[in-house]
Amino acid sequence: MSESKEQNAVRTDGREVDALRPVKCEVDFAAAAKGSVLIAMGRTRVLCGVTVDEKVPGWMRAQKVPGGWITSEYSMLPYASADRMRRESSSGKVGGRTHEIQRLIGRSLRAVVDLEKLGPRSFWVDCDVIEADGGTRTASITGAYIALRLAVNRMLEEGLLEEDPILDQVAAVSVGVVKDRPLLDLCYEEDFAAEVDMNVVMTASGKFIEVQGTAEESPFSSTALNEMLALARKGIDELAAIQRKVIGG
Amino acid sequence: MSESKEQNAVRTDGREVDALRPVKCEVDFAAAAKGSVLIAMGRTRVLCGVTVDEKVPGWMRAQKVPGGWITSEYSMLPYASADRMRRESSSGKVGGRTHEIQRLIGRSLRAVVDLEKLGPRSFWVDCDVIEADGGTRTASITGAYIALRLAVNRMLEEGLLEEDPILDQVAAVSVGVVKDRPLLDLCYEEDFAAEVDMNVVMTASGKFIEVQGTAEESPFSSTALNEMLALARKGIDELAAIQRKVIGG
Amino acid sequence: MSESKEQNAVRTDGREVDALRPVKCEVDFAAAAKGSVLIAMGRTRVLCGVTVDEKVPGWMRAQKVPGGWITSEYSMLPYASADRMRRESSSGKVGGRTHEIQRLIGRSLRAVVDLEKLGPRSFWVDCDVIEADGGTRTASITGAYIALRLAVNRMLEEGLLEEDPILDQVAAVSVGVVKDRPLLDLCYEEDFAAEVDMNVVMTASGKFIEVQGTAEESPFSSTALNEMLALARKGIDELAAIQRKVIGG
Amino acid sequence: MSESKEQNAVRTDGREVDALRPVKCEVDFAAAAKGSVLIAMGRTRVLCGVTVDEKVPGWMRAQKVPGGWITSEYSMLPYASADRMRRESSSGKVGGRTHEIQRLIGRSLRAVVDLEKLGPRSFWVDCDVIEADGGTRTASITGAYIALRLAVNRMLEEGLLEEDPILDQVAAVSVGVVKDRPLLDLCYEEDFAAEVDMNVVMTASGKFIEVQGTAEESPFSSTALNEMLALARKGIDELAAIQRKVIGG
Amino acid sequence: MSESKEQNAVRTDGREVDALRPVKCEVDFAAAAKGSVLIAMGRTRVLCGVTVDEKVPGWMRAQKVPGGWITSEYSMLPYASADRMRRESSSGKVGGRTHEIQRLIGRSLRAVVDLEKLGPRSFWVDCDVIEADGGTRTASITGAYIALRLAVNRMLEEGLLEEDPILDQVAAVSVGVVKDRPLLDLCYEEDFAAEVDMNVVMTASGKFIEVQGTAEESPFSSTALNEMLALARKGIDELAAIQRKVIGG
Amino acid sequence: MSESKEQNAVRTDGREVDALRPVKCEVDFAAAAKGSVLIAMGRTRVLCGVTVDEKVPGWMRAQKVPGGWITSEYSMLPYASADRMRRESSSGKVGGRTHEIQRLIGRSLRAVVDLEKLGPRSFWVDCDVIEADGGTRTASITGAYIALRLAVNRMLEEGLLEEDPILDQVAAVSVGVVKDRPLLDLCYEEDFAAEVDMNVVMTASGKFIEVQGTAEESPFSSTALNEMLALARKGIDELAAIQRKVIGG
Repeated sequence: MSESKEQNAVRTDGREVDALRPVKCEVDFAAAAKGSVLIAMGRTRVLCGVTVDEKVPGWMRAQKVPGGWITSEYSMLPYASADRMRRESSSGKVGGRTHEIQRLIGRSLRAVVDLEKLGPRSFWVDCDVIEADGGTRTASITGAYIALRLAVNRMLEEGLLEEDPILDQVAAVSVGVVKDRPLLDLCYEEDFAAEVDMNVVMTASGKFIEVQGTAEESPFSSTALNEMLALARKGIDELAAIQRKVIGG
Repeated sequence: MSESKEQNAVRTDGREVDALRPVKCEVDFAAAAKGSVLIAMGRTRVLCGVTVDEKVPGWMRAQKVPGGWITSEYSMLPYASADRMRRESSSGKVGGRTHEIQRLIGRSLRAVVDLEKLGPRSFWVDCDVIEADGGTRTASITGAYIALRLAVNRMLEEGLLEEDPILDQVAAVSVGVVKDRPLLDLCYEEDFAAEVDMNVVMTASGKFIEVQGTAEESPFSSTALNEMLALARKGIDELAAIQRKVIGG
Repeated sequence: MSESKEQNAVRTDGREVDALRPVKCEVDFAAAAKGSVLIAMGRTRVLCGVTVDEKVPGWMRAQKVPGGWITSEYSMLPYASADRMRRESSSGKVGGRTHEIQRLIGRSLRAVVDLEKLGPRSFWVDCDVIEADGGTRTASITGAYIALRLAVNRMLEEGLLEEDPILDQVAAVSVGVVKDRPLLDLCYEEDFAAEVDMNVVMTASGKFIEVQGTAEESPFSSTALNEMLALARKGIDELAAIQRKVIGG
Repeated sequence: MSESKEQNAVRTDGREVDALRPVKCEVDFAAAAKGSVLIAMGRTRVLCGVTVDEKVPGWMRAQKVPGGWITSEYSMLPYASADRMRRESSSGKVGGRTHEIQRLIGRSLRAVVDLEKLGPRSFWVDCDVIEADGGTRTASITGAYIALRLAVNRMLEEGLLEEDPILDQVAAVSVGVVKDRPLLDLCYEEDFAAEVDMNVVMTASGKFIEVQGTAEESPFSSTALNEMLALARKGIDELAAIQRKVIGG
Repeated sequence: MSESKEQNAVRTDGREVDALRPVKCEVDFAAAAKGSVLIAMGRTRVLCGVTVDEKVPGWMRAQKVPGGWITSEYSMLPYASADRMRRESSSGKVGGRTHEIQRLIGRSLRAVVDLEKLGPRSFWVDCDVIEADGGTRTASITGAYIALRLAVNRMLEEGLLEEDPILDQVAAVSVGVVKDRPLLDLCYEEDFAAEVDMNVVMTASGKFIEVQGTAEESPFSSTALNEMLALARKGIDELAAIQRKVIGG
Repeated sequence: MSESKEQNAVRTDGREVDALRPVKCEVDFAAAAKGSVLIAMGRTRVLCGVTVDEKVPGWMRAQKVPGGWITSEYSMLPYASADRMRRESSSGKVGGRTHEIQRLIGRSLRAVVDLEKLGPRSFWVDCDVIEADGGTRTASITGAYIALRLAVNRMLEEGLLEEDPILDQVAAVSVGVVKDRPLLDLCYEEDFAAEVDMNVVMTASGKFIEVQGTAEESPFSSTALNEMLALARKGIDELAAIQRKVIGG
């Protein structure tokens, strides 16, 4: 890998092609939430908080589905990126991108949870991006797992839950192809220049929850797909280790 | 493959695991559109129509991006599925799923088009689902390509376009895992029962435009991912052949 | 009337002043609907589908009105006319014209139905215009009756309805005054040029359900009103005969 | 007509079948409007006000249509009828009925005005119902004409208009069939019980601008139609005389 | 006070600095409302009407709060001021200013009412501004009290209420600083020129319900605050006397 | 004041009646904003960020008002308080309370700024409440001043502004009456129990920008008003000192 280091000179922050940005987590940042974390991946920073409603969504009641549900809301603070974005509450509509991300976060968490064991409750996972430098949806998922884990731990301690409903860890990372080279964990500048952009959500045990690869410019080959998947796997392993350390125990 | 046939008895319509549903296309169905097709994949039927606006979206004008753009709108007729769905124009909001699909269709077409050669125009590709039996977004993409191809052919004939802006064919198909077995082109019943659901958008030349795999119930392995990708490749090849036949020439 | 034939040379499509455009109906076009028809009146084509909800609207429940209800939704596909129209689900609001038409279709059907005999159900009649060349609201009503008749026939066969709730046939046609001459069944070009525009909804038994006459440019006389009503009567008789033939039996 | 008087005992307010309710007009009620009138027809009371914008709607500018435009907004105060209605500004959407009425008022006024002579201006005619006892849309039209006439008179005096753009008077009245008897100017109770409900907008010179007849319960015959039209004609004549008297001069 | 009269020459309408504009009230203006008044303060005119719903808001039912509630809706007719304002029902959103005023009116009335004695009812107080010449929110409160008092009186007479729920009178007035001089009851022109604008809501017994003072241009001193409060007190005393006289008895 | 200390035992957190909660400020918390601070007043924590648009609002351009503008947006994170609040972007409407607060923050800042010196720019001040324990609007104003001061300092350093547009400091604090005793800086529990609730916005030089006092339960006397104003003055002095220290220099 000595050669690749030289090549890496093209990554603007000097990282190796297969290196994550520095990850920092400040747990229990929002004291009124059941669980929360301020997660930073490089300059991307997301505040993730979990609240618990003691009732399930209407459709679950109507269909008498047992257990609970996990829903996510994702939002960017208006000053998160260089150009001010209009707050969606002011414009009165939630954009397609926001919807897509919210659904992805919710799905990713539900895939590692035994929903029946949640009891008849709704877990809301809010992800608010304070700074955006690429990878906000993957940082949101990685942080959302931590906030959920903290909330569940608290509820187990308080006797609100009897059994641990969480079956596995989940983390997410972006990979992509920039100038024909597969890269792990793209920052905004790299994401902007990427020919292919892929988000991978995986469990700590190495299984896929979501694979979303998009050709931004021109279609990509099977070889590129496989190289990106290998990088993603490496990144997820490292993120899962960080999650365990942050949550402690 | 004689063994698999027996196994296939579990596919409710008697198909092989790697077989597409019957595909039928009625071109020029909507005479006022520039290009249109009523595409059927089994019982799933989608009406795809292309209209052309002689101006580009505001952001292109503002940023002085040369060339044109392709946008898609996707909609389900209220009686397309067993349970009546409320028309989004009546409820006053377009759901997250609809947004996601619209963005996917637009992206898939743009990936095989040289946008500069479109001239300063917006191409609108409308996909209206008349019957939904699984795979509506993939049928929409496969049909949308046909409608776009027909529209472009007409514009070339009329001298509105000088050069062909279309670089490759694009088609899409769903694959999934049902009862641990990878299947091609899921109908609604299979989709509902699937442990993993994946949509693949590819070019006729075998490159990926979009790979979206989702664990509906529990995370999936690398092996399952590879088997699904192989099935998708086979399906896309067959769809591309049908597209060529339908368009004629 | 031999003189008038010569005069008719001014109708762009060569029709007599008192002639309908060619009518074609493809029944059961949308298989997932309870009843459906693709009706064409000249180049105007509307897809009419009926779905049935096993519950009545909230206000009926609240007021304990016995029986059922019939509601209509009307929509134009964006490429139905020469200029692309923005889909109402995208713009987020349903226009006044659409509301007016939906209310008219619903009212027209309810006037020939014994609502009590529907049982506690909501019948939704969706009319989606695939091509618009004038007279979309009247074609919608004429087609909607066919779709409703088919749906009711199926429900009678299936034993879901015991008695036939339909009391009479309903059809609709436009009439107008163009260059001082009353015309039957205006196409778009004629409608655009019309001094007076009138829609008439009648039963097969010759009674009025709705008469809507509007001076587009300058007020009109009693004589013009009477001539238009006579033309409408003739058109409705012909449409009712076509309906009977299409439904069969 | 001595016989009919006896029959008339069924009209709750003792009116003849062909009598209008008492009409009262208080002109210049809203001093900040260019022209205004508080019109009462029996217990139905509508405040009509005209304001003038020194610019035309966007579509007129875009299409370079010469002259001006007249638009109407219609609203019911929440306490106008027995049951409080939710204010449309609070519910955030304007209902179909409101749209229909607004369009009707605007169309009726434009039919008696030479729009070119208005100059490049938008005339807004606001009709706010203070009490609703049937016939609010027809009272709105009759009052709107008065408010418009007063506004135009003031603008002629002020030299803002050079020529009178108003070509004829317009008034409107409801007619209907209650218990098989045609009646003029239905109050709410009669309107509620009516088998047929018709609104007629006419000029003082006896020409039709709008005829809207609706079977509320069961379809109606040609004879009924003709009787209603005759009653309407009588009512319009009387209203036009009142308008002239109120405006004075 | 002979000196101040001379100074007063600067008030455009010749009023003393501590004088209210002429107040006129026409009670029972909207006969379908439970209580109503058309109140004029100078050229500002507001129509206030009360309707009663025999149910409480959802949150009261949910929390089992005993008694009733009072809610207000405030609206400006489009021609109320010189520049036509778009009707909020048309623009589809209620502005911040309107919300603020509605909440203020509701709060002010509730502060002088024993809500338990209202019984399980919602009182809606609608304030529609017919002409706006400054002080519309304070005129609305002063008129709303009259309309509420009339509605309650009627309900006491009808036996719908057993005990009088109203504990005190409430009235409101604006004060401000214009060219360094504190003034009572600002008209639009004065309000527009004011350095400080304050609305005071008080009871007839001299207690405060609301004090809202805003520096429009530059911050203001304690001295100015005290002078304005004294003027407000004087104005409220006079308005309370007028209210008693109007209500009679 | 030795007596009052004993009395203070009723303040749940042991504070004196005239004591602020502990104030902490973390400046430059959101690096992508022009200026930002995370301010805490006791458990209430608000993230304030300023972004700058190089254009003024449409109404300023239209009216050719020279200089710039300051606008505020206020939002509560859904988990900020004990009960989850629905995100306004999801419900699709911004509530009345939010509007009121946004307008107040904007007005308060504009009152201490020479808008002309801002140049043709819009300053957006976003206040996002991370934890809410009473006094979120006043903490927002106090923090917003700091964020604005930091943003302006940076723009002065960068040469984007030539002269300092800020004329004075502004801070805000709540006061109220609880169990007949005036208190400074109410926490949520005190605010909930308060008979009177008042927010005061003042400059460091001791002038008022806004005084908003509301009787929550029963009207309040002049004496109570004066006592509250004195407490507010003391609180503002302390907050202004903290602001100066935090900004440094």
